[in-house]
Amino acid sequence: MKKVGILMGSASDLPVVEKAINVLKEYGVPFEVHVYSAHRTPVESAEFAKNAKANGFGAIICAAGMAAHLAGAIAANTVIPVIGIPVKSKNLDGMDALLATVQMPTGIPVATVAIDGSANAALLAIQMIALSDDELYGKLVEARIKGAEGVLEKNREIEEKYNV
Amino acid sequence: MKKVGILMGSASDLPVVEKAINVLKEYGVPFEVHVYSAHRTPVESAEFAKNAKANGFGAIICAAGMAAHLAGAIAANTVIPVIGIPVKSKNLDGMDALLATVQMPTGIPVATVAIDGSANAALLAIQMIALSDDELYGKLVEARIKGAEGVLEKNREIEEKYNV
Amino acid sequence: MKKVGILMGSASDLPVVEKAINVLKEYGVPFEVHVYSAHRTPVESAEFAKNAKANGFGAIICAAGMAAHLAGAIAANTVIPVIGIPVKSKNLDGMDALLATVQMPTGIPVATVAIDGSANAALLAIQMIALSDDELYGKLVEARIKGAEGVLEKNREIEEKYNV
Amino acid sequence: MKKVGILMGSASDLPVVEKAINVLKEYGVPFEVHVYSAHRTPVESAEFAKNAKANGFGAIICAAGMAAHLAGAIAANTVIPVIGIPVKSKNLDGMDALLATVQMPTGIPVATVAIDGSANAALLAIQMIALSDDELYGKLVEARIKGAEGVLEKNREIEEKYNV
Amino acid sequence: MKKVGILMGSASDLPVVEKAINVLKEYGVPFEVHVYSAHRTPVESAEFAKNAKANGFGAIICAAGMAAHLAGAIAANTVIPVIGIPVKSKNLDGMDALLATVQMPTGIPVATVAIDGSANAALLAIQMIALSDDELYGKLVEARIKGAEGVLEKNREIEEKYNV
Amino acid sequence: MKKVGILMGSASDLPVVEKAINVLKEYGVPFEVHVYSAHRTPVESAEFAKNAKANGFGAIICAAGMAAHLAGAIAANTVIPVIGIPVKSKNLDGMDALLATVQMPTGIPVATVAIDGSANAALLAIQMIALSDDELYGKLVEARIKGAEGVLEKNREIEEKYNV
Amino acid sequence: MKKVGILMGSASDLPVVEKAINVLKEYGVPFEVHVYSAHRTPVESAEFAKNAKANGFGAIICAAGMAAHLAGAIAANTVIPVIGIPVKSKNLDGMDALLATVQMPTGIPVATVAIDGSANAALLAIQMIALSDDELYGKLVEARIKGAEGVLEKNREIEEKYNV
Amino acid sequence: MKKVGILMGSASDLPVVEKAINVLKEYGVPFEVHVYSAHRTPVESAEFAKNAKANGFGAIICAAGMAAHLAGAIAANTVIPVIGIPVKSKNLDGMDALLATVQMPTGIPVATVAIDGSANAALLAIQMIALSDDELYGKLVEARIKGAEGVLEKNREIEEKYNV
Repeated sequence: MKKVGILMGSASDLPVVEKAINVLKEYGVPFEVHVYSAHRTPVESAEFAKNAKANGFGAIICAAGMAAHLAGAIAANTVIPVIGIPVKSKNLDGMDALLATVQMPTGIPVATVAIDGSANAALLAIQMIALSDDELYGKLVEARIKGAEGVLEKNREIEEKYNV
Repeated sequence: MKKVGILMGSASDLPVVEKAINVLKEYGVPFEVHVYSAHRTPVESAEFAKNAKANGFGAIICAAGMAAHLAGAIAANTVIPVIGIPVKSKNLDGMDALLATVQMPTGIPVATVAIDGSANAALLAIQMIALSDDELYGKLVEARIKGAEGVLEKNREIEEKYNV
Repeated sequence: MKKVGILMGSASDLPVVEKAINVLKEYGVPFEVHVYSAHRTPVESAEFAKNAKANGFGAIICAAGMAAHLAGAIAANTVIPVIGIPVKSKNLDGMDALLATVQMPTGIPVATVAIDGSANAALLAIQMIALSDDELYGKLVEARIKGAEGVLEKNREIEEKYNV
Repeated sequence: MKKVGILMGSASDLPVVEKAINVLKEYGVPFEVHVYSAHRTPVESAEFAKNAKANGFGAIICAAGMAAHLAGAIAANTVIPVIGIPVKSKNLDGMDALLATVQMPTGIPVATVAIDGSANAALLAIQMIALSDDELYGKLVEARIKGAEGVLEKNREIEEKYNV
Repeated sequence: MKKVGILMGSASDLPVVEKAINVLKEYGVPFEVHVYSAHRTPVESAEFAKNAKANGFGAIICAAGMAAHLAGAIAANTVIPVIGIPVKSKNLDGMDALLATVQMPTGIPVATVAIDGSANAALLAIQMIALSDDELYGKLVEARIKGAEGVLEKNREIEEKYNV
Repeated sequence: MKKVGILMGSASDLPVVEKAINVLKEYGVPFEVHVYSAHRTPVESAEFAKNAKANGFGAIICAAGMAAHLAGAIAANTVIPVIGIPVKSKNLDGMDALLATVQMPTGIPVATVAIDGSANAALLAIQMIALSDDELYGKLVEARIKGAEGVLEKNREIEEKYNV
Repeated sequence: MKKVGILMGSASDLPVVEKAINVLKEYGVPFEVHVYSAHRTPVESAEFAKNAKANGFGAIICAAGMAAHLAGAIAANTVIPVIGIPVKSKNLDGMDALLATVQMPTGIPVATVAIDGSANAALLAIQMIALSDDELYGKLVEARIKGAEGVLEKNREIEEKYNV
Repeated sequence: MKKVGILMGSASDLPVVEKAINVLKEYGVPFEVHVYSAHRTPVESAEFAKNAKANGFGAIICAAGMAAHLAGAIAANTVIPVIGIPVKSKNLDGMDALLATVQMPTGIPVATVAIDGSANAALLAIQMIALSDDELYGKLVEARIKGAEGVLEKNREIEEKYNV
């Protein structure tokens, strides 16, 4: 199975990134985690991206805050799908990272998820890999059913409490 | 080859969507275009999404403006990747569509591109399909090289004009 | 008397929603509370909306955060009035939910109240039902008078403290 | 049948308001149009609101731009439902009017629609009146069906043009 | 000497308003504090404004949050200067109150200060009254000199600590 | 009578400023217009402010765009009231000028009006001068009555056109 | 004299960049113009930055729009000063480019100027080079004096027109 | 070696400014710290700026919050490079200070860094001085290498923890 790369621009993004790691483990999708900064280690970032296809990656998740260039810098060096997680920093409530991640110019797409939307980034990567993996696809369908059941379970609890 | 679904919430989104159509044609990726509104034709929208896998779709692109729910409504009914294009409307410069598209809750990802970022939505879909299609992958690599050459060509023109 | 439906997109919205519940209890207006997610339980959400009129509902209050589609998804499936409460989440201070709730396209209105404006959502539903219920209307008038008296009482306290 | 009041803060809001007028005419719902400014004619505005119930109004639509106080000022003087249309002015793209209309304090709700969302304001008023008027309710249902058909018609045109 | 009226839309605005009260006390300018809500006590608010001139007021300070209409509602009923303090509420960081206060339509000005800028509201009122009161004017000049001295005093401390 | 100073940061602000000039002429209030830039002519700006009281000014209106420092720079050098008009420039819709004008630190107030709110800036200055000029005060009252009549006149026209 | 590098992310940024070119010509500061895209020509961009010092550059100006990564990508590969011009694109009024340029992480500064603030970017570069070039410094002083004279000239025109 | 001036608009900005001080100490670059307010001590601020060149300064860092005019006021009085740090205050998350610092008019540039971006302000000043100081330049290069090593060290830790 193709691997998912998980890059974070700074080790301080780890708490956000861990939710993605957990989702990938849950689905049994292989992954690699790295700290590569678009600004502080541009060479290593670019190297990772250039070799990603050859190294068996099927998607790369990039988490970064502020002027969040990591996803864009990776996407500039590969044509496998790149998923960007805008990370909320101390100021501006994540709006800076969101715009720096999503507003990519024509030719270099980044699939952007919600601010701190780490679990969805992992799910998106899994959905891509599942395009050619029916077992994985089946797990996604199952998880959706369980997700719905979870909501309906909560619904019953709240119905019992509030509706006579 | 898997098809790409292209949905727009309103026929008025067609000028934005056409750039995605052109990119898919350029790459020879099969596609289907539909006008389905999350709000005005919720049944048809959901039906399309539920049958997308069975009908041979590998990714669904959704373009919508204002309280842009289309991508989310489609993503709620399928686990194949959904790509959202926030469309700029008359007011708020597309910020409403961007936030309504990208800020999805955990469990239901939407891969969001830039406001009116139609060409990139198509490229993202192609990147996903190319994960298991080496010829298509090769075309993406080639296009990147041409893209770089285009920039360098422009660079030479401007260098000649301004640098003595 | 017609009932008010109160839907929340996630059980975590309950603290916001409880203020609406309390207001409806205060006025003796019958209600039903449910957790239905536009994205995780789209079928149940749509079913609720389609049957709302037949089930005796006069208005439906929907609370949701982030890319808050619940009110819109309900409004897409009924023509009884739908009231949207944008819920503030961890990021963006509720602006995402506000725009995703209020910026509805022509044909599918959602009556939007303030971010976390749960009590007002309930009052709005009561005002609608009171259009054909003079006793209920009388209670609204009374509450306004009491509201004014509450302000004037506070005014007297502060006048005494600060004005010689 | 109860009437709908349509107030605008300035005669320059008429182009926005006319869409609401047309929708009300279409549905055969009686209405009255007035120019009353919360700031320039506060007395007349308050008088209108205080007498609205007695004068047979079932809902009041208020359109205003900038620091859009009209809906709030009317809502402060009546307990029949007040619907606010934030009107886009020359600057800030309507965000000022949206926040000034929707962020009402507890106790005085305003049902806010999209910026310049005039047609939806009228539909919302009609939905309220239709709560006790089955014929009007039927017209709303019919319009929805026609709305869906309109989308599907457009869909067919676009399908024919783009899908082989 | 003319009095300064200090109105707050809700008793919860008192912590913000107290800074204005303290400044007025410091300068020996007479004042009156009231809780009047544009929405909950529109009659009392308007009455206060209409009689303000006759009751000896030279300026009216209005503090309110969210869809902050108080300053505008007061300004609509008097031609003595009205000063608006946008109060930060739980959401949107005060931006809603700022826009609802400052974006007044032509003809009804509100002199707006910073979000929670209560002390400056008081100073502005004092500056207005000081236009015809040389002693008060002298106090303002003195305070400026003391203000500068305070900064320079801090400057010396920090210079000593950091500059060798 | 005290004069009103009207400063603009750039001659390009003249179209905005002219509305203030016209209002002052209408009321017969003496004024002086100058182009002084906080950044390009800081000395002249400060000189004007320091001598404003001695030169018979009762209020100073400052219009500036972008990082609009003019009002603050003037207010830093005088204790007579300073009124700031944030001017909309090519980008950001005037939000930059609004925040740079209104968010003044404690001690140095600027009475801020709406973006491009030139007429209101003049009215505010007139209201301040009218505090000790009953004739001028009378004119303000009269203008308000005329303003209300203007609205009511428009109201009658629109009533005739739309209300049967 | 050290040269100034002027990079633009796309040839479409040329109209903005030309103002910087003109300022540098005016001051007789040598420069080189290039089109290098952080995303489309990442290798060339990095190469330029790495060799900038050796090639005699004293500062590098980077103009880019949307998710404007160019300045950051250049700054990641050099320690000579990098100046960023956020370019306004079709949507979001330049706010995306501003945040993507200015919100750089610790360690990799970008000296950001106003949206489309091309002339100031050039002046900033000249100020840096003038730190060790007294003649150039003298030209900057002179230009300031002329700038002030230009304002005062405009001032006299407007004074004559409006002040009696 | 040329000195770096560090100005803060208020002593309360010291915690932000201290990071700049520490960076300058680390690099052995001489500096002077002052508290000068553009609004409360305009004369001292201007004096500092006018004499900065003669007093041996090569760059001036200015930190200020809210309507952050300090950098602009200093830049108005000198042609040596001025670096602005927008400081986050209690409200608006630093957006007010960012816009008031960066949106400078043509002719008076301010090199703006991120909100609270104090360390980068110092690095930028050092980069400017290093243009004519090869030893200092060497230290900047070294620090970059160490910065990259720091990231790669973190990378190894996280790789060991997460990658099998």
